[in-house]
Amino acid sequence: MKKNQKKTGEFEMIRRIRRMAGFSPDVLKGIGDDTAVLKGGPPDEVLLWTVDHVVEGVHFDGKINDRAVGRKALARSLSDIAAMGGKACYATVCLGLPDGFSAARVHRFYEGFFKLAREYNIKLVGGDITKSPSKFFSSVAVLGKMPSRNVVLRSGAKPGDLIFVTGSLGGSIFGKHVQFQPCLKEGQWLAENRIATAMIDVSDGLAGDLGHILEESRVGACLEASKIPVSRDAIKLFRRDGKSAVKHALSDGEDYELLFTCRFSNTGWVSKFRRIFDTNISCIGFITSEKKEILLHDGKGKIQKIFAQGYAHF
Amino acid sequence: MKKNQKKTGEFEMIRRIRRMAGFSPDVLKGIGDDTAVLKGGPPDEVLLWTVDHVVEGVHFDGKINDRAVGRKALARSLSDIAAMGGKACYATVCLGLPDGFSAARVHRFYEGFFKLAREYNIKLVGGDITKSPSKFFSSVAVLGKMPSRNVVLRSGAKPGDLIFVTGSLGGSIFGKHVQFQPCLKEGQWLAENRIATAMIDVSDGLAGDLGHILEESRVGACLEASKIPVSRDAIKLFRRDGKSAVKHALSDGEDYELLFTCRFSNTGWVSKFRRIFDTNISCIGFITSEKKEILLHDGKGKIQKIFAQGYAHF
Repeated sequence: MKKNQKKTGEFEMIRRIRRMAGFSPDVLKGIGDDTAVLKGGPPDEVLLWTVDHVVEGVHFDGKINDRAVGRKALARSLSDIAAMGGKACYATVCLGLPDGFSAARVHRFYEGFFKLAREYNIKLVGGDITKSPSKFFSSVAVLGKMPSRNVVLRSGAKPGDLIFVTGSLGGSIFGKHVQFQPCLKEGQWLAENRIATAMIDVSDGLAGDLGHILEESRVGACLEASKIPVSRDAIKLFRRDGKSAVKHALSDGEDYELLFTCRFSNTGWVSKFRRIFDTNISCIGFITSEKKEILLHDGKGKIQKIFAQGYAHF
Repeated sequence: MKKNQKKTGEFEMIRRIRRMAGFSPDVLKGIGDDTAVLKGGPPDEVLLWTVDHVVEGVHFDGKINDRAVGRKALARSLSDIAAMGGKACYATVCLGLPDGFSAARVHRFYEGFFKLAREYNIKLVGGDITKSPSKFFSSVAVLGKMPSRNVVLRSGAKPGDLIFVTGSLGGSIFGKHVQFQPCLKEGQWLAENRIATAMIDVSDGLAGDLGHILEESRVGACLEASKIPVSRDAIKLFRRDGKSAVKHALSDGEDYELLFTCRFSNTGWVSKFRRIFDTNISCIGFITSEKKEILLHDGKGKIQKIFAQGYAHF
């Protein structure tokens, strides 16, 4: 099956499950955002809940050491909490262990997990360990919280909003996909200061994740190719495979940067953000009213329509 | 590796992880009970959080249909919430899909899941779908809540308490391991009426799960063999393999009945329980002060020391 067909299959499947799940007044946001947003805390707070897999042969290969796998397993879920602007509190870890996977390797997985957990004061509170028929698999769930009024959904973008992204994009396969730092502090700051109108973390690739914002907000986007922050690794990949670095930045997965929109009139925060955080930030385009359409401006007068596709998970 | 060694390995691994996890005032109970018990809700309520795997080739084989797998995946986690005496509210589903696992099969998995979810008014709020390198795997997490003062931990049993179990035990392999009804209502009733002093669901086998109560409560137990409710399927297994039905009841896994203790002076509730619920209930013994020791009384004056071992997960 081709990548695009796979992507369509995955999203169609999720759409179906979402329809089956229905609605509930306690579920402020269910399937269709970075985390679920739930009532259940004090009246002015919401719970955030997310879960992500890390599977051998899918999300990492045998060359990655066990500590890095444990760290990545947690970091992926933390990045989802960051994309809501929330605070992460608790985690559970599920492991599937193939025959011969030693206790020492499990220990190293948890060493990597706890090193990152301590940085953000996250408590491991449970999980499940089972046998796996072939490869190692894990899933880490994180429970977080935040003031209800600050939650940033994917659905808040309006035509005319500016589009920003943190860091630089593309070529995460060279190492960033395991070493990335989840943007929890940046996400919280953007939410607390009511700057971001819609937000997501870049896990499927810039175009794919922007596509999620466009779908949930029922809007379109126009991007300026020259403004897209291209990473050194994207350039390295271009030298290897001839696909332009901008294309890598648009389509490679697992950068875990924050992609968000803000009102056009509200840009005073950018210089403040740069003073507070050691994080690159770029304005890469703006929101249009053309539903789900992404236009790419090459800076020489040419405009190209691109598809909201990123890394296929299966 | 032999079953007993495997068991020791699993529990030693969990003990290690528990030590690494440490303590936190917000975590009323972390690793070491059926669910985590967390602050985070209104002041007089706690959150309950649990997660369980269902893996092809480990928890079910190819003969079980996808609807039954989806139902079981949820039911296992609901049984954990039942063992705390809580109310289940929200669920997430993680799926690992091998190549060729069709959208129709995923749909049937969710049909089974939602049929049970509707019975208990549980909302699906998120999850993750990934590729699996070989077999199908899933994990379902459930978030629940309950009044803080009613939580029933594994650690509340005291010498002299009576030991009760619901339903009948052994031979779940003939079908109960997928068809069982989680004892949510029974668990809530036992908690609300402050009857159970310690509680667990029987997933590892009666002796194994009683062992967990004994370990957490630092006590021992004496069981009356003739009082252990033996299922028809345990007798069927005895006819096949010659191992006594009581032994099957003590060691087979996945019955998902409630095993709990109550104060010796407090037994007026039993007849009330029988009037309210269509659920068998048996008093099978009492708690002693001999740490972690289980004695089995054969009713003819013979007493045997048994080991707290049940079904090995890996």
